[in-house]
Amino acid sequence: MHQNIETRLSINTATVRKQGDLVQIMEACARHGIRAVAPWRDQVAAVGLERAVRAVRENDLALSGYCRGGMFPANPDRRAEVRDDNRRAVDEAAALGAPCLVLVVGGLPQFSRPGSAPTKNLMQAQTQVEDGLSELLEYARDANLPLAIEPLHPMYAADRSCVNTMRHALDLCDRLDSGRTGLLGVAVDVYHVWWDPELETQIQRAGKKRLLAFHVCDWLVPTIDLLQDRGMMGDGVIDIPKIRGWVEAEAGIGHIEVEIFSEHWWARPMDEVLDTCLSRCRSAV
Amino acid sequence: MHQNIETRLSINTATVRKQGDLVQIMEACARHGIRAVAPWRDQVAAVGLERAVRAVRENDLALSGYCRGGMFPANPDRRAEVRDDNRRAVDEAAALGAPCLVLVVGGLPQFSRPGSAPTKNLMQAQTQVEDGLSELLEYARDANLPLAIEPLHPMYAADRSCVNTMRHALDLCDRLDSGRTGLLGVAVDVYHVWWDPELETQIQRAGKKRLLAFHVCDWLVPTIDLLQDRGMMGDGVIDIPKIRGWVEAEAGIGHIEVEIFSEHWWARPMDEVLDTCLSRCRSAV
Repeated sequence: MHQNIETRLSINTATVRKQGDLVQIMEACARHGIRAVAPWRDQVAAVGLERAVRAVRENDLALSGYCRGGMFPANPDRRAEVRDDNRRAVDEAAALGAPCLVLVVGGLPQFSRPGSAPTKNLMQAQTQVEDGLSELLEYARDANLPLAIEPLHPMYAADRSCVNTMRHALDLCDRLDSGRTGLLGVAVDVYHVWWDPELETQIQRAGKKRLLAFHVCDWLVPTIDLLQDRGMMGDGVIDIPKIRGWVEAEAGIGHIEVEIFSEHWWARPMDEVLDTCLSRCRSAV
Repeated sequence: MHQNIETRLSINTATVRKQGDLVQIMEACARHGIRAVAPWRDQVAAVGLERAVRAVRENDLALSGYCRGGMFPANPDRRAEVRDDNRRAVDEAAALGAPCLVLVVGGLPQFSRPGSAPTKNLMQAQTQVEDGLSELLEYARDANLPLAIEPLHPMYAADRSCVNTMRHALDLCDRLDSGRTGLLGVAVDVYHVWWDPELETQIQRAGKKRLLAFHVCDWLVPTIDLLQDRGMMGDGVIDIPKIRGWVEAEAGIGHIEVEIFSEHWWARPMDEVLDTCLSRCRSAV
């Protein structure tokens, strides 16, 4: 299996966001024989949705996901704004042919939607997340566009996501989609969940219907920045093949999406980064 | 209750480790009316154990804990070294009159005990932790010195502790001390566990017998360093009074230990830091 793993590689376009625009990134991926990408909304907006859709087609690319919706906690008077913003994300994902919209659900409202009143009430934020998810799920159902909750590492609990474990994300799935329709699931990013002693059992709990995306990078020791010091696969301490095995045992063979936020890799030429992603897919994933 | 909360303040001596030696720190605490401390082993070693014991007595201080034992994962040929090191920590804690030895259990062996062979096998590290704990518990039983497992924030999973949640720590307690003798429990530090949606239920699960220490500081947004950017209570996003209430509902009124690793606070005069700890105890804890 391993010699073909690079055919499953998808590049999350944030990985090379500083080296080119979305069209240039897709062209570079195609040139390297990479068959899938996961674009970010701001990168799509920068070239325009129609141009992005055309670039996907021209370069014969599949999508492994669309990044991102979420950021639900906000002042109550901004609920409509948050709802509409997320509905647009669903529409864009559908237009691009993404298999799912990845959701980073948001942390405390003052960080999730800046300008919202400061609070330390994390449980209230979690309630707002659940309410927002529930509402968005109806819209996603009409669009037939699955939503993938991405539990983020607990170090992002305050400012990015108050859902930090697979257990919590899957509890939400159970409550909001008890019928396991396939329209609500999780994105498993090894960076966020590798430390969790429950990871294997929670991946099994998720099962094929709820394992909507699989993201890889690596955890560096030391990590010198909470946001922009993620490692290339193989440069850190995560046993990626083990986690990949757990995911494949449930979900079978799907895309392996490389998502690296790193000042180091953003400073390297795009071709070098893509080459390295390909070779590390073979050696360290 | 709140007007007396400062009588429960304990200073973890790492909080002012750069402003004086252990004797100077204890004298400063006494001068400020602070009644308890939690010393670190290296600070004790720097002045000598006997001098430290005398300073505790001279300044009429109680201890809220002793920092720290643990760091169990290591190359197999170093097992005796790790065991003896931890037994000495138990002896020192007993000599100082500490109510518990705080355990930071260690992460992967190459970081936990430098020089050990590199591995990515976190489960194996967790097994070594459990074996090491089991062995040390016998020694602690003879010394009648409780061991407090401190679950560390998941961002320290690789290099400091592969036990990152209350659930995991309490699972270890259940397996190793099913009789709930009081000799094995947890240290709850809000910095490490504030994000956990299970925190309240796990504090209830722990109960009085297993809630051996309560540490406070704050989570800053942004956090600019994984190790040395902890916040003074009130400067961050943690709802400390809520968590304190959960702990007190189970364990009653005990020490509130301030432990802050911060380049910012290490650069301030000791008296200012201690004054601030006292005032923030009243306003933000």
